[in-house]
Amino acid sequence: MSSVLIIGAGRSATSLINYMLSKAADHNWTITVADADPEAAKRKVNGHPNGHAVWLDANKPNDRKDLIGRHKLVISMLPPGLHYQVALDCILLRKHLITASYLSKEMHDLGEQARENGLVFMGELGLDPGIDHMSAMQKIDEIRAKGGKLTAFYSHTGGLVAPESDTNPWHYKFTWNPRNVVLAGQGTAQYLYQNKLKYIIYQRLFKEARSLDIPDIGQFEMYANRDSLRYREVYGLQNIPTILRGTIRHKGFCSAWNALIAIGLTDTNLPISGSEDISYNELMDAYCSPNTPGNTVKERIANLIGTTPNSEIIEKLEWLGLFSRRKIGIPNATPALILENLLLSKWELQPNDRDMVIMHHEFEYTLDNKKHHLSSTLTMKGNDAKDTAMARLVGLPMGIFARQLLLGNITTVGVNLPVMPDVYNPVLAELKTFGVTFTEHEY
Amino acid sequence: MSSVLIIGAGRSATSLINYMLSKAADHNWTITVADADPEAAKRKVNGHPNGHAVWLDANKPNDRKDLIGRHKLVISMLPPGLHYQVALDCILLRKHLITASYLSKEMHDLGEQARENGLVFMGELGLDPGIDHMSAMQKIDEIRAKGGKLTAFYSHTGGLVAPESDTNPWHYKFTWNPRNVVLAGQGTAQYLYQNKLKYIIYQRLFKEARSLDIPDIGQFEMYANRDSLRYREVYGLQNIPTILRGTIRHKGFCSAWNALIAIGLTDTNLPISGSEDISYNELMDAYCSPNTPGNTVKERIANLIGTTPNSEIIEKLEWLGLFSRRKIGIPNATPALILENLLLSKWELQPNDRDMVIMHHEFEYTLDNKKHHLSSTLTMKGNDAKDTAMARLVGLPMGIFARQLLLGNITTVGVNLPVMPDVYNPVLAELKTFGVTFTEHEY
Repeated sequence: MSSVLIIGAGRSATSLINYMLSKAADHNWTITVADADPEAAKRKVNGHPNGHAVWLDANKPNDRKDLIGRHKLVISMLPPGLHYQVALDCILLRKHLITASYLSKEMHDLGEQARENGLVFMGELGLDPGIDHMSAMQKIDEIRAKGGKLTAFYSHTGGLVAPESDTNPWHYKFTWNPRNVVLAGQGTAQYLYQNKLKYIIYQRLFKEARSLDIPDIGQFEMYANRDSLRYREVYGLQNIPTILRGTIRHKGFCSAWNALIAIGLTDTNLPISGSEDISYNELMDAYCSPNTPGNTVKERIANLIGTTPNSEIIEKLEWLGLFSRRKIGIPNATPALILENLLLSKWELQPNDRDMVIMHHEFEYTLDNKKHHLSSTLTMKGNDAKDTAMARLVGLPMGIFARQLLLGNITTVGVNLPVMPDVYNPVLAELKTFGVTFTEHEY
Repeated sequence: MSSVLIIGAGRSATSLINYMLSKAADHNWTITVADADPEAAKRKVNGHPNGHAVWLDANKPNDRKDLIGRHKLVISMLPPGLHYQVALDCILLRKHLITASYLSKEMHDLGEQARENGLVFMGELGLDPGIDHMSAMQKIDEIRAKGGKLTAFYSHTGGLVAPESDTNPWHYKFTWNPRNVVLAGQGTAQYLYQNKLKYIIYQRLFKEARSLDIPDIGQFEMYANRDSLRYREVYGLQNIPTILRGTIRHKGFCSAWNALIAIGLTDTNLPISGSEDISYNELMDAYCSPNTPGNTVKERIANLIGTTPNSEIIEKLEWLGLFSRRKIGIPNATPALILENLLLSKWELQPNDRDMVIMHHEFEYTLDNKKHHLSSTLTMKGNDAKDTAMARLVGLPMGIFARQLLLGNITTVGVNLPVMPDVYNPVLAELKTFGVTFTEHEY
């Protein structure tokens, strides 16, 4: 009897837990779901005979080790900062480990120890990172097997709201960590274009968003991810002239988000004095200089960011309530925290809202002296605010891989991302049975 | 016989050391100058019978304590980060301490221990901070003594190049720490205007520079300092409606510096890949998007920052060599480091160049139901690259205060800035004998 420990029973773990429980009887698995909130774990297990819900404070080393020690495989849905402690326990106690998070340098550095102990540590096995790696690598390996030579690779993913649930002028609702959305892009983005390194500073990132035409789906826009260069080696694309990874948004989002950045509302450093007692209107006015022309704060902000008071950008800011006389009510808050709290209510997915995930790759390659342009696109919609496409696409790859691992079909030990055929082929094949299909277009 | 220890014999210590040595025979003082480079210390002492040059690595606690223990008063010219260790030694060994640096929170927290031990710890006793505090407080106290009520206080300082040595299109040369010039303004600036808090984000700081008319001197420009609010309490101006502190530059500097920020050249986070082998021209091109129009990098950069290729801003960038095909030659360098290295040679003060310091306060107050506008201005020029106005104005206040302290005229123990009459009056009075005079104008 194989036993699996899932640590973390939050929204993003639902599909994973359901998948593991649905396969548990067939394979005689026991699935333990551990969370700091035992009631949440209980709700997710939902009385399934092969499931157990337990309480765990993942910051307590002894409790954590004790629980890990009693299982064969650990799937960590904890915040990224906690994976490393779990990984050290897994090395010590000789357990396999799966996460959906970016592999940190310190996780990579555990590779030799994991290999020596015959352990499989698989990271970046969610949606992005995760399905992006697998679907791109399958296509890249296919092109290479035909003798094609890649000249450009573009990859974009977006967690969006479905058109039928798109009820606000931003055309966006939260389906994932709101803080990450507020802080997205801080720093400098880098990518490669025709063998030249390109840098985009934060203040230009959303301004330089490009339009993205997705065949049969429509027109979107995308902004560049922080580091498009990091997967060149692991994808075997060391010499590719052009590589760019980006995030998809509905049209109009990026120029309005750029306005929030330009005003200063995504800043995380300087707390606003007396933020509890001032209104959003007063905060906006505080960013205008005494010389900024305009009779109202709305007019001054429009002048500050170089637009007109009746523009779509100002309309979006107004819809958020940024010109309202309502008190902010959060003491000692940074602009980013104030913005995050405002967006939490404004961009909340309503119970019957459907989300929509789009992943869109573009491959340019030469084969037999001819240029080829191929795109490959996944779209998936959720059912409601609980059963989101986002949670499915993050959870299912981990569940499917876990099953393969427990069946003994995975032989690659060490710390890895899912870029090898013996990983991506079975996972992508079974994902298809859940409607995760990519549509290809020559363009 | 009183003995004084000066730690640090760099460029900024020259005037201080000369002052202390010039008074040493009269008062029977011994002046020890300690530096990690004993030759530099020797050159500064220059064989004076009351002077000693010694070697000290300030990071070695035992050597440091041993040396401090053998003196009565310590003047630390070390980098700001090292003052705190020296201060702890001074508490332990019961020695007075003087620095020209901003008092950190941890330094302030030593106040009670210093007081209990009867020690004088005086910080911010250079030019800015230093002479700015003293000259402003003298005037503010004078206005208050007459019954005036301050409604606005503006204070500006600039370390500039004198017009007769102004030989470049930026009208700027380094007279102080180049790194601080490159990083100036990063973060968000805050000030108070007509009882409203105002914030200026870094990307607007130099764009929103204001012109500054200084009576009898000319037209300059100023950008706001990071935190204009921090001295409200210590100046006794808790309820002043308007307070703004700023940095003075020659006209045209700020809009061109804003271009460097807008391009991304002051970034300290992301090292440029292969920075050793690319040219400045290639670096500039890397900031342009593939869609930025222009046949040359100069044209593309002009479009990127919204100017024309023959504008004064582009002329200044070109003069720096930013469009040249010369290799950068610094491995793994951030843009800020690349820029600093370029500026070091371009903005170097030549041996016979004269620098110029300007300090300009503006006081607005009501007295007998009448509004008054008073400005108070100091200008001083250096003689050459060694005897700079900057080094004099940083060093002399410390030297003068040290003499007063050794004469027993200073009674305020604890950790302080020079805002009390028994400090600023004697220091400003003796500074006058060195030509440090403020000219007043009603406006």
